[in-house]
Amino acid sequence: MKTVVYAGTFDPITNGHVDVIERALKMFDSVIVAVTTNSKKKPLFLLEERVELLRQCLKGKKGVKVESFHGLLVDYLKKKKVNIIIRGMRELSDFEYEFQQALINRKLYPKADTVFVITSPKYFYVSSSLVKEIAEFNGSKLGGCVPLPVKKALDKKFR
Amino acid sequence: MKTVVYAGTFDPITNGHVDVIERALKMFDSVIVAVTTNSKKKPLFLLEERVELLRQCLKGKKGVKVESFHGLLVDYLKKKKVNIIIRGMRELSDFEYEFQQALINRKLYPKADTVFVITSPKYFYVSSSLVKEIAEFNGSKLGGCVPLPVKKALDKKFR
Amino acid sequence: MKTVVYAGTFDPITNGHVDVIERALKMFDSVIVAVTTNSKKKPLFLLEERVELLRQCLKGKKGVKVESFHGLLVDYLKKKKVNIIIRGMRELSDFEYEFQQALINRKLYPKADTVFVITSPKYFYVSSSLVKEIAEFNGSKLGGCVPLPVKKALDKKFR
Amino acid sequence: MKTVVYAGTFDPITNGHVDVIERALKMFDSVIVAVTTNSKKKPLFLLEERVELLRQCLKGKKGVKVESFHGLLVDYLKKKKVNIIIRGMRELSDFEYEFQQALINRKLYPKADTVFVITSPKYFYVSSSLVKEIAEFNGSKLGGCVPLPVKKALDKKFR
Amino acid sequence: MKTVVYAGTFDPITNGHVDVIERALKMFDSVIVAVTTNSKKKPLFLLEERVELLRQCLKGKKGVKVESFHGLLVDYLKKKKVNIIIRGMRELSDFEYEFQQALINRKLYPKADTVFVITSPKYFYVSSSLVKEIAEFNGSKLGGCVPLPVKKALDKKFR
Amino acid sequence: MKTVVYAGTFDPITNGHVDVIERALKMFDSVIVAVTTNSKKKPLFLLEERVELLRQCLKGKKGVKVESFHGLLVDYLKKKKVNIIIRGMRELSDFEYEFQQALINRKLYPKADTVFVITSPKYFYVSSSLVKEIAEFNGSKLGGCVPLPVKKALDKKFR
Repeated sequence: MKTVVYAGTFDPITNGHVDVIERALKMFDSVIVAVTTNSKKKPLFLLEERVELLRQCLKGKKGVKVESFHGLLVDYLKKKKVNIIIRGMRELSDFEYEFQQALINRKLYPKADTVFVITSPKYFYVSSSLVKEIAEFNGSKLGGCVPLPVKKALDKKFR
Repeated sequence: MKTVVYAGTFDPITNGHVDVIERALKMFDSVIVAVTTNSKKKPLFLLEERVELLRQCLKGKKGVKVESFHGLLVDYLKKKKVNIIIRGMRELSDFEYEFQQALINRKLYPKADTVFVITSPKYFYVSSSLVKEIAEFNGSKLGGCVPLPVKKALDKKFR
Repeated sequence: MKTVVYAGTFDPITNGHVDVIERALKMFDSVIVAVTTNSKKKPLFLLEERVELLRQCLKGKKGVKVESFHGLLVDYLKKKKVNIIIRGMRELSDFEYEFQQALINRKLYPKADTVFVITSPKYFYVSSSLVKEIAEFNGSKLGGCVPLPVKKALDKKFR
Repeated sequence: MKTVVYAGTFDPITNGHVDVIERALKMFDSVIVAVTTNSKKKPLFLLEERVELLRQCLKGKKGVKVESFHGLLVDYLKKKKVNIIIRGMRELSDFEYEFQQALINRKLYPKADTVFVITSPKYFYVSSSLVKEIAEFNGSKLGGCVPLPVKKALDKKFR
Repeated sequence: MKTVVYAGTFDPITNGHVDVIERALKMFDSVIVAVTTNSKKKPLFLLEERVELLRQCLKGKKGVKVESFHGLLVDYLKKKKVNIIIRGMRELSDFEYEFQQALINRKLYPKADTVFVITSPKYFYVSSSLVKEIAEFNGSKLGGCVPLPVKKALDKKFR
Repeated sequence: MKTVVYAGTFDPITNGHVDVIERALKMFDSVIVAVTTNSKKKPLFLLEERVELLRQCLKGKKGVKVESFHGLLVDYLKKKKVNIIIRGMRELSDFEYEFQQALINRKLYPKADTVFVITSPKYFYVSSSLVKEIAEFNGSKLGGCVPLPVKKALDKKFR
């Protein structure tokens, strides 16, 4: 029984994140979606809102659990007894940062390994920050970028 | 029971390849190491030699099978009923090529997905072509780059 | 009659921007220089100052119009009935970000296409943020980086 | 009346090339598709075959002319009195090479400028060399990668 | 007698920085470690603390001098009559930024040239910001990343 | 007395190479320009021709020695008792390959370190292979790319 952790700020979850989770479920037995509390920038959605949106958007997917954690990812991994981190790649520029993160996590916790999957090209352009920028100026353009509960939550925030 | 395919020319297998296979075995139930016959450049080792070296170097690792295939990787995947390709990343420059290969394989066979793992930094510099270049000029420097059976085979080729 | 939009913060316009505009004028019939109001970081120059500096620096160039816009670039394009965005490339690192922006704009407004031109290598190092950093510490070194009206405006801001 | 040159080996033309030509036609008045005779590697298709396939695949597109040239691209540009080169970008890795080519062409012929457009993401993975590799091993998988006349020509070459 | 300047924020010095300084000392006669006062982001350690930590960590290394400077690096170089800037590279992503900085410094002061050395791969993942993030959440994991005086100083800051 | 080795195929030497050598001479006491005999591709100029062209182009520069070597660069370094390799960077894409080479050389010979300098932007586009391509088709365009003795030698080869 192989479990992977998919960690992030998820402010908010996008269709790109959902795509990664669906791919992970085909490869591993279960996925813990772990929302980090220690973002550098002030998030748009509170931690509880982000967790709640994830739960709504992932409802019905077998093998998925949504949690939150504080502190270093490797300490969370140890606590959960999970050794595999999964990351989605949207485009090349992601990779440099991801590569470095994977190496540091492996250094801090040698058992921890990171696997990368490539999201569908139709989501290459989708990121949480882009989604917030579009929502701020023209929410009608969010179609295809975020699940419906997120679209509604963004509409509410900006109107 | 999750199986992954690790395909390549393996001309010859290096310690970097072994590192990828060991990481794969921690994440998945079994790994098929698949040697391709349709390399663009003339290989140093014959297909049978490459398969034999792989078998010697991977002897004793549970869950590993060494095979060879001809034609498109996706057609081989279908035949083996495996949907996951594993690739090792040594450095950033690899990624651009790998990214494109992963997308084309997914396009040719939508069920096929590629996962990437990062080799140990101590093998970032190791590649089959480098190993052959060192062997040609100063085989005594191969230590740490290749398993012992490969060192012996290279010594024989060049002396 | 082909018109392109060259959008940006222009805080302030540099010789690199002027170089892009001059190249655009050789390829297209007219260029709308569109100053965006929704910068993430607080600009050094007010919107009106930025527009005014652009007008002074581009005075006499036939086919150029300076405007400002609020909101998404694609909504501005629709309003102006223009389908081509022009971008200047200074160095490789620009490209990853630009590539993603071009894809998202095309997704939000399928008629919109982005063309890239390469600025003169002598401006590869010039950026608005660099120009402000130099001006802050040693304005005498701005020669060759910005048009004269910008040099004067920067001197005034920092002294 | 603005004309651009789209030069390449086109061995053979792919749907990615067609996509670039269609984008070029929306931005400029006419496009000269210029097949180079001085490829480093031996092409699969003869020059006349490549020109003929281009003509078949581009038939009916207004403003397109197919030609061939020998020697430096900049000398051909001068002869045709055209100053704009158009290039399609498929992925980041292309850009480094393209950037250097654009700078050298500008250096050899200062009037020459290069504009880049981004192909549709659905063609990011398509290249002439990939198309030939697929055709060699499993031509039934070419759908979506090349226009029909190219598919037929490839089938004939490999069977 | 060749002197190089190694400039940075050093907030705080890491083992990666020490590695660069040791390599510089093998190549040049003396190294001035120059702490800049004009960081964009608020540093964790005061300027005097950063200088003091550098002095403690570099004590006993012959040919090293620790100083601080305000303003443009090129103005500092002129004042010190030094023409060579040394920079450590940790990974590819560094290089784009470094490349641009080197070009601008050469432009602002044509005598100034930048040389790059590659840090030991075991420090590729180490950066000042990472070190602070680890210290904040789990200081026991800092081993191997920073010299002992820095570990103590970080422990004190965060507890 | 610090000596550096600048190794390469130099087929033929370009103005970019000369630029690197001149920068090296400002930083170090002497430079050995070392022509390798084991190029993968067949060179245009014989080894003796390449050495002779280097000698003509570098005549009069104090501290420069031109030699040739066979085998691994690190074995040559040991023989010459030199520990520093110098490399010129023309553009980002160079760096990935250079980075890997530097790491492998350090691994094969831990005393060996590589320093990188950036050539003048006016030579970013110049490479030996480009120079040969231009010479083949239109030698009159070589001005600024190669020293005069090389221009003459190229003219002779191609006419």
